[in-house]
Amino acid sequence: MDRRSFLKTSALGGTAAAATTLAAPAYAQGKRTLTMVTSWGRGLAGVFDAAQKSADNITAITDGQLTVEVKAAGELVGAFEVFDAVTAGQADMYHAADYYFVNQHPGFAFFTGVPFGMTATELNNWYYHGNGMAMHDELGEIFGLKSFLAGNTGTQAGGWFRKEITGPEDFNGLKFRMPGLGGKALGYMGASVQNLPGAEVYQALASGAIDGTEWIGPWADEKAGFQEITKFYYTAGFHEPAAGLSLAMNREVFDSLTPAQQSAVEIAAGHANVWNLSQYLMNNGAALERLKAGGVKVLEFPDSVWDAMGAASQQVYDEFMGDELFKKIYDDYTASMKASSGWITDSISAYRKQRDRVLG
Amino acid sequence: MDRRSFLKTSALGGTAAAATTLAAPAYAQGKRTLTMVTSWGRGLAGVFDAAQKSADNITAITDGQLTVEVKAAGELVGAFEVFDAVTAGQADMYHAADYYFVNQHPGFAFFTGVPFGMTATELNNWYYHGNGMAMHDELGEIFGLKSFLAGNTGTQAGGWFRKEITGPEDFNGLKFRMPGLGGKALGYMGASVQNLPGAEVYQALASGAIDGTEWIGPWADEKAGFQEITKFYYTAGFHEPAAGLSLAMNREVFDSLTPAQQSAVEIAAGHANVWNLSQYLMNNGAALERLKAGGVKVLEFPDSVWDAMGAASQQVYDEFMGDELFKKIYDDYTASMKASSGWITDSISAYRKQRDRVLG
Repeated sequence: MDRRSFLKTSALGGTAAAATTLAAPAYAQGKRTLTMVTSWGRGLAGVFDAAQKSADNITAITDGQLTVEVKAAGELVGAFEVFDAVTAGQADMYHAADYYFVNQHPGFAFFTGVPFGMTATELNNWYYHGNGMAMHDELGEIFGLKSFLAGNTGTQAGGWFRKEITGPEDFNGLKFRMPGLGGKALGYMGASVQNLPGAEVYQALASGAIDGTEWIGPWADEKAGFQEITKFYYTAGFHEPAAGLSLAMNREVFDSLTPAQQSAVEIAAGHANVWNLSQYLMNNGAALERLKAGGVKVLEFPDSVWDAMGAASQQVYDEFMGDELFKKIYDDYTASMKASSGWITDSISAYRKQRDRVLG
Repeated sequence: MDRRSFLKTSALGGTAAAATTLAAPAYAQGKRTLTMVTSWGRGLAGVFDAAQKSADNITAITDGQLTVEVKAAGELVGAFEVFDAVTAGQADMYHAADYYFVNQHPGFAFFTGVPFGMTATELNNWYYHGNGMAMHDELGEIFGLKSFLAGNTGTQAGGWFRKEITGPEDFNGLKFRMPGLGGKALGYMGASVQNLPGAEVYQALASGAIDGTEWIGPWADEKAGFQEITKFYYTAGFHEPAAGLSLAMNREVFDSLTPAQQSAVEIAAGHANVWNLSQYLMNNGAALERLKAGGVKVLEFPDSVWDAMGAASQQVYDEFMGDELFKKIYDDYTASMKASSGWITDSISAYRKQRDRVLG
């Protein structure tokens, strides 16, 4: 069954499904076990925790009405097969980074992170009080999904390199792991870009199949062990100023839940969102110190590299702007970022600058 | 029927349990109405919304088992009487800024905001993945409370003044509204500091009872109408780098809830926390533009004022350091801030600087 006929069937069968639900109250209020497939290896620092937290939240607050079972990548389906598994009804929901699915629709990139786009705070502003959630819904409608932000890694590190990056020309021919629109931008800079799930990156780096990789940030990267192979680590990156993680439920499954259960899913995901971001940010500082102590050279990209990344990113946006929905999301996202970033600079950033200056 | 035997029955047969639910709305599984008193005037932008959101979240996800009724300041008790009302059992929970209660214990200040302390992001890091929540519990134990962060205004504006602030001497003799430890610091700078609830500030400013006030940020301040009286508005302030809002439940009431209901309260509060912060940050930018267009002069304090604020803040901390629990919280809070702020500077701040530079 292809996706469109799946949607059609589902639209026609909506009333019948509802009637069945009403006729069997044991089902509506009784105990259900829902399966969450994820793009994460079991126990993968941060991302798997966010999936588990979302699942546990739902299980806890529905008092056993819903029990969510979490499957790691490969346990039911592969890391990048979770989207198809949920839209086809093989699993009830996925937890993943939606930019893995830009080939389904490039608009999914906005709900993880896009080059020169929003930080986690700005993404939440747009999602909860701008049009972000409504646009996530609009994308979800196409594929029969109901999605919620349910985690965030914060601004991702620029990544791991075998040698220092001194200018944009160093990306020419570089075999580098980077998903999403950021990866496409690196491609415009001449890199040979690969999109590998987390569980496969270490081996690819160790074997020389790739020259370097971005992953998440010091805490998760240290656990992945990239410092054992490469020694040049760049902090801020252009490609994922935030990396939102999504819990996406099969739309028919979501519609079959009671209103209280639907609220439980939404609120559980929102809690996991703030819980997970703070998990990364609380752990990154100490991890970075350990990496430094272990001989990793911690650097920032020079301005010339940032400039080239900016130009390449614009090429990527131009490439997709012919898609009406992509352009609609881009325009709204960009306007929201502009509307919320100024005050963040005037208040939070200005304060932090003074705090650093006064406290020394 | 107690909860354990109910669960056992329910496991044996869903239909039978459902029938029991309808026939006997027992206390443990049945419907309870809980009263939330707040420090906020009804409809007060942001803060009242956070209270209402927390309450609605609990009501929604417990499927009517718990209905939380929100009382604005003055409807049951006054804005600053909510603490006593809840510890005495007159109300089930409060929603307030815990620094209103520094006279109960100065340690409460840390769970709203303290001079030169944590931003909202840093506070969440400490709360959810450091010892913050455990220390909130330790304070709560003393008074019979179980508290959760349930909102945040973000970094608060420096406030409204009748004339420009050119140096620390301008605070000498100034009648200014500022609660918490920040207010005490302004006192050390020579100001005559008052702690008024939000609903009374406009009148005090209009009548000349106070010369100036801080409140929250552009969006809430504009709604309060301070621009009608004063024209000098300072953006970043030293006094509340974040302003966490707390939902605090009477400990006996909390202990009487089922585990699922306790989880519901915790997760509902966490969702309201991120939802409320993004509400402020999404709305502040446009409000600041409107204030500017209306003739408000938007300024930053000069370095000499920040330096004096730093010295005065240190005096405040020294004043309370004899209290063992205060010192314990201060030490842990300070260590956590140091541990999480470095990476935020290296990643989020470094990225935002490059984004501003590249996008122009």
